Amino acid sequence: MERVGVLSGYLRGSEAIVRETLALADIEIGGGGPIPLYVHDERFYDRVLTQGAFGFGESYMDGWWDCDRIDQLVYRILEEDLISRIPRDWRIAVSWLRAQLLNLQSAPRAAQVAHAHYDLGNDFFAAMLGRTMTYSCAYWPRASTLDEAQEHKLELVCRKLDLGPGDHVLDIGCGWGAFARLAAERTGARVTGVTVSAPQAAFAREHCKGLPVEIHVMDYRAPELLRAGPFTRIVSIGMFEHVGTKNYRTFMQIAREAMSRDGMLLLHTIGRTGWCDSVEPWVDRYIFPNGVLPTLTELTESIDRLFVMEDWHSFGGDYDRTLMAWNANFERAILENDPRIPASDRFRRMWRFYLLSFAASFRARTRMQLWQLVLSARGVRPVYRSPR
Amino acid sequence: MERVGVLSGYLRGSEAIVRETLALADIEIGGGGPIPLYVHDERFYDRVLTQGAFGFGESYMDGWWDCDRIDQLVYRILEEDLISRIPRDWRIAVSWLRAQLLNLQSAPRAAQVAHAHYDLGNDFFAAMLGRTMTYSCAYWPRASTLDEAQEHKLELVCRKLDLGPGDHVLDIGCGWGAFARLAAERTGARVTGVTVSAPQAAFAREHCKGLPVEIHVMDYRAPELLRAGPFTRIVSIGMFEHVGTKNYRTFMQIAREAMSRDGMLLLHTIGRTGWCDSVEPWVDRYIFPNGVLPTLTELTESIDRLFVMEDWHSFGGDYDRTLMAWNANFERAILENDPRIPASDRFRRMWRFYLLSFAASFRARTRMQLWQLVLSARGVRPVYRSPR
Repeated sequence: MERVGVLSGYLRGSEAIVRETLALADIEIGGGGPIPLYVHDERFYDRVLTQGAFGFGESYMDGWWDCDRIDQLVYRILEEDLISRIPRDWRIAVSWLRAQLLNLQSAPRAAQVAHAHYDLGNDFFAAMLGRTMTYSCAYWPRASTLDEAQEHKLELVCRKLDLGPGDHVLDIGCGWGAFARLAAERTGARVTGVTVSAPQAAFAREHCKGLPVEIHVMDYRAPELLRAGPFTRIVSIGMFEHVGTKNYRTFMQIAREAMSRDGMLLLHTIGRTGWCDSVEPWVDRYIFPNGVLPTLTELTESIDRLFVMEDWHSFGGDYDRTLMAWNANFERAILENDPRIPASDRFRRMWRFYLLSFAASFRARTRMQLWQLVLSARGVRPVYRSPR
Repeated sequence: MERVGVLSGYLRGSEAIVRETLALADIEIGGGGPIPLYVHDERFYDRVLTQGAFGFGESYMDGWWDCDRIDQLVYRILEEDLISRIPRDWRIAVSWLRAQLLNLQSAPRAAQVAHAHYDLGNDFFAAMLGRTMTYSCAYWPRASTLDEAQEHKLELVCRKLDLGPGDHVLDIGCGWGAFARLAAERTGARVTGVTVSAPQAAFAREHCKGLPVEIHVMDYRAPELLRAGPFTRIVSIGMFEHVGTKNYRTFMQIAREAMSRDGMLLLHTIGRTGWCDSVEPWVDRYIFPNGVLPTLTELTESIDRLFVMEDWHSFGGDYDRTLMAWNANFERAILENDPRIPASDRFRRMWRFYLLSFAASFRARTRMQLWQLVLSARGVRPVYRSPR
């Protein structure tokens, strides 16, 4: 942070600018107003102005500020588009300074933290995700609890694909096996799940014991995958975010090839609007390294000439509620001194900021989206009716 | 047709090739089999091989062949992809010959016929479309008659946009005013409809008398359109097919500009899969001159950075049923000597081939699609729930 400190003389009046800009969204520093923000370290102002969203998130991790409603705070910032409302001459200075500061972001300390997400292990996620162990958006229209909403999501996928005992389903990115288990139990379908995570696979196998479910540690591009088919149905729930733009077409081609003549694919993925950045630097650094969210057009281009698009369901508003429920589980576990939550305060602040700022982003509706697409190999006859 | 006649010596064995190819789809020439096809003129074989789908349609208009189930005939041809199954050396000859023959298609006789569609007048369409006068795909899941299914489609649009007395709706391509009337009557919304057809506008005004509906003869690009807004809701039902690829973005920009802050747009349009031609030459010539159907990507590119995509509903299978119902009305009117149907036999054969081959194309599912998209200016909060 030394370099930021050096700049503070240059960035005269940064506190006033930050205060005035936040006030546009009814955010008051130092208490009062609907969303009070408490600044513990005066370097906060320079850091936010020079590093933008990245500095905002990282300075929270560093304990430079606090807020009781981070979700509402970030929501208001997005909603009022505060970044664009920083005075114009400031924005020019900021973008120049940000370029100077980009090298800071490759510091080894941060890179170290980046792996934390995937090294957290099954127990940590069990504490946060609840009974269903489902790490993707739930479906809330007829649910009142997280577990119910996750179950409804998994059932919705089964209904959209009209699963039955005659089906052999490929689950690309099967996670801890929640979908495989529910689909096999309730519809009689046979399920082959693949994941690149050995701990997930071990959990999933245990979770699906006694059911017609096979779990493999395997990349979706592995040649063995095609040999296990053809599959009457393919699902991919919350894995496409890790595929990467340049591999979308490959993903779709493999799905098409792995599918039987009357096959269908259900893709459940976060998407983004075209005016929203592919991924925020803070998220890329601390939460989802190499995660990329597709736009509408990136998806349609990958589908074109391979599938008939049967339905495109959007319910990003439900991700807000899902993330808030995960955060509630997380905070409760902390209060209860649950040993499954890492003790590091910096980790806890990072995780809280991730869950709540993502909730805010889905709440704002103009940035991140949640999409379920149903695609078919040659068109469902006579007509596809998508349940909701 | 003289030039086709000249080629028949060159195209030796064309009858055998056509017979063998059709047999692959269980189509038997001269009776027998599930779909008998009766050839009245031996030049049919050369014409189909050299002119493909164009010659197939035009030779039907000329009375060279007949079939009791043109819809099933075309469906089977599409389903079995017969064009690609013509022997390879033939296909090479055919594509060369087709290029030679393309000039034939600019014959003034055909160009004359092209205008027939739009010159047919309100009475003709009333005979075909039934009580609702709605010339777009109906919605059949809970309907048993065409009128019911059309009403359900219009109601579905009202529900998807959550219309109420506080709304001011812009209807781009309002046709004979069916949507404007139903929306105003049942939801209390105020509707401004625009059409480029003066006869349609006259009919629509009469149809909507006494309701808060205004109808203008106006292009969607007219500056007056924006002055009549902003509109809380915009609908465009079955008009986008005439917009043209290069204008999609303009259409969307105008819709966005004409819309209030929480505005929504419902776009109801025929689409096509990427492996399907933009428009068949026969259709372009005789039915929809300059009609172009968008692909998924052509649509998403036009939406990107302007709207949040809330829902993408696909129900092309319902267009099969709609077209069959229109054809049934048309054939009944002919049997009853309804004076609203033009007397020309060539026109009647053209119209029948249009309705039934379109039904076939929707039945095949891999070519033409019917899409309803719901787009919003800044995302519906907290979440958009699309009715079905």
